[in-house]
Amino acid sequence: MSKPIRLGIAGLGTVGAAVVKLLNERQQRLQAALPRRIQLVAVTARDRTKDRGVDLSGFEWVDDAVALAVSPDIDVFIELIGGETGTAYDAVEAALRSGKSVVTANKALLAHHGTELARLAEKSGAALKFEAAVAGGIPIIKALRESLWSSEIRRVYGILNGTCNYILPLMMTEGRAFDDVLAEAQAAGYAEADPTFDIGGFDAAHKLALLTSIAFGTEVAFDDIYVEGIENITPADIDAADELGYRIKLLGVALKTDAGIEQRVHPTMVPKHSAIAEVNGVTNCVAVDGDDVGAIMLVGPGAGAGPTASSVVSDIMDIARGDRTPAFVRPAADLVPQERARMRAHEGAYYIRMSVYDRPGAFAAIAGRMAEQEVSLESIVQRRAHRALPGIDAGRAPGELTNVVLITHPTTEAAIRKALEAIVADGHIVHKPQMIRIENL
Amino acid sequence: MSKPIRLGIAGLGTVGAAVVKLLNERQQRLQAALPRRIQLVAVTARDRTKDRGVDLSGFEWVDDAVALAVSPDIDVFIELIGGETGTAYDAVEAALRSGKSVVTANKALLAHHGTELARLAEKSGAALKFEAAVAGGIPIIKALRESLWSSEIRRVYGILNGTCNYILPLMMTEGRAFDDVLAEAQAAGYAEADPTFDIGGFDAAHKLALLTSIAFGTEVAFDDIYVEGIENITPADIDAADELGYRIKLLGVALKTDAGIEQRVHPTMVPKHSAIAEVNGVTNCVAVDGDDVGAIMLVGPGAGAGPTASSVVSDIMDIARGDRTPAFVRPAADLVPQERARMRAHEGAYYIRMSVYDRPGAFAAIAGRMAEQEVSLESIVQRRAHRALPGIDAGRAPGELTNVVLITHPTTEAAIRKALEAIVADGHIVHKPQMIRIENL
Repeated sequence: MSKPIRLGIAGLGTVGAAVVKLLNERQQRLQAALPRRIQLVAVTARDRTKDRGVDLSGFEWVDDAVALAVSPDIDVFIELIGGETGTAYDAVEAALRSGKSVVTANKALLAHHGTELARLAEKSGAALKFEAAVAGGIPIIKALRESLWSSEIRRVYGILNGTCNYILPLMMTEGRAFDDVLAEAQAAGYAEADPTFDIGGFDAAHKLALLTSIAFGTEVAFDDIYVEGIENITPADIDAADELGYRIKLLGVALKTDAGIEQRVHPTMVPKHSAIAEVNGVTNCVAVDGDDVGAIMLVGPGAGAGPTASSVVSDIMDIARGDRTPAFVRPAADLVPQERARMRAHEGAYYIRMSVYDRPGAFAAIAGRMAEQEVSLESIVQRRAHRALPGIDAGRAPGELTNVVLITHPTTEAAIRKALEAIVADGHIVHKPQMIRIENL
Repeated sequence: MSKPIRLGIAGLGTVGAAVVKLLNERQQRLQAALPRRIQLVAVTARDRTKDRGVDLSGFEWVDDAVALAVSPDIDVFIELIGGETGTAYDAVEAALRSGKSVVTANKALLAHHGTELARLAEKSGAALKFEAAVAGGIPIIKALRESLWSSEIRRVYGILNGTCNYILPLMMTEGRAFDDVLAEAQAAGYAEADPTFDIGGFDAAHKLALLTSIAFGTEVAFDDIYVEGIENITPADIDAADELGYRIKLLGVALKTDAGIEQRVHPTMVPKHSAIAEVNGVTNCVAVDGDDVGAIMLVGPGAGAGPTASSVVSDIMDIARGDRTPAFVRPAADLVPQERARMRAHEGAYYIRMSVYDRPGAFAAIAGRMAEQEVSLESIVQRRAHRALPGIDAGRAPGELTNVVLITHPTTEAAIRKALEAIVADGHIVHKPQMIRIENL
């Protein structure tokens, strides 16, 4: 057996501590599968005195993450600090420059600097691995890199944010409003005090950016992602979706089209009798459509110390096996700039919900505006407010408001937007119409 | 770049032809991810003259598979002949003895000779890889070997046979009898003329045997698997399951218990609001419960030329990357003989359906027999025959038959079997009672 691979861990939060624990307790199991011994030698974190529930006495303590990153005592630098810039960036950059392989769980860092860091890694012959950065314990990065790579991939998509996937099903099963469920999720620790990053879709977008680049061999293009959060989804939408045979999920989708690559994160209708519709709570999933392999989906815990640590350790094992496949499979020099397909060119079916003044000609005008843009309708449901609020009469009389829900046949985003603008201008509806994209699964 | 890896393919059925096509058409894409060139040099099959829709003119034709297996012109032997013994066995054995790595899609061969062949491979320093042997295009072997290995695995289970998974949902959606749907599946090419191997559960058992060994580090123990097919599932069961919140699937399950390892293939009730319940048709899935990584499930095409070829090529890529991890992760010498947990020790909840003579005391006697074995009941549904057949009166009168469906609380297989034997002996029921295990997901 050759000499051991020496590890240094920067960041000892819940994930860092779980990695230390796993390496300690599973030494024997891990070695059974590896040609080289792996050995944790040094750690760093902000506060040396904090009790993290793991014994760190056997490891060198280094005060500075960058110093650890370039230390001659380690071969692999494990970055679990987090953050798009600052110490995490400085340390990863320094490690790669000095030829050390890096394992990171930092999606923000890679979504913003992935291509540049991949180049740096290749220049110095180091590996840059990030299974834990996308969908926690789900081994999707390895699957894309090593198992599904022989197929031309057409689409990669998934439920990539646990907070949103906790909130949306609760809104459905309990018929509660978004703000209400969000507050509960915050109290239960499933949502941050400032939830914008999760519910606004940005966390999912970070992960999507990495999936896209691996699937399509393109430079990481986080800024090209169309992002829409779940803040405006109402119980009325969730009920109407259910009635029409759908569930609403926050999906991240990367799709190869003739116009380029669509990257988008938005609330999406999926058929309720599909496996993805039953992926709920903090469970996430990623699906891949390849031309040979067909449709593959991986489901599992999208976050959490144990699952994330498991992914970090699987990257360490790959490095111990000698894997030096480029970070995004193709050599960084071969990654092509991403040709962005504009959202207006997106093709698909749409769900539209409007509160319409119930007067003669209103519906004819709406239907006419759709027809002008050649948007044809698959189904129309006109219904009372489903859940009457106290003090509000849910009955319907001429001149009052009625809820109209439309499902269109496939059309373009440009056409549907034009039709809705005209409908708003006509003045038959109150509030902005709700529009939710239907993904063709 | 070092010298190319030279491949020989034995067996040019639909999968073999698809592998040739994939290697031809995807050369550039594959090489982008590999440090060494892969080159198909020779092929063999029974009939040289047959048109397989792929150009074989560039490859050496070898008449004999064993001769190809030991040919000095190849480095990797790809076995796509099939069969537990005969040419497939002889050729794989010869290839491994001569130090050539082997990629195979042959689950029967490995279920019966896996441990022995793994030993042979290690002795000569060759790789033995079989992603395509389990669940077609689903990359579960790689996930278990490389991504989930740091977790102690408690259970691995899945829907491992496409034929059964095509028949059962059709019985549900169309309310048709097993024989009727089977005949249609045969006509459509989803079931063999002799369907025993699939519907009897043996195909799923072959795959389960391999999953078990990788998950638990044990010798392959196909003969230890408890196997029960779907032949006796009736529309009445499917309806009752639906009413009680379940779907019926043929599952293969390997579970670590205090009594040893349970390996079993049988019709199983799964909650209808679960992702696995929505895995239908030729789509298969494999799920893993690990103590760190949590619950992971992979879903995808369980068969078919494209998906299977994709898995064969991913194994070839691993070999090109230099991967020589033992076939079942641990070195063959470290695989422990499997300690079999007997089915009678199985613990779980049960669904029982009985046709009971509707007379005073009948139900009290049944409930008494359950109580004697300390089996407690979670729910009891007494119902008419749901779908009256022409000429049969589905009405109910004293002395006639009534359908009784019970769901038990968790108990043991020994207890439920004893209770049912006593109930049969009491003479209150007609026919053998139906018993379906409920898996705790």
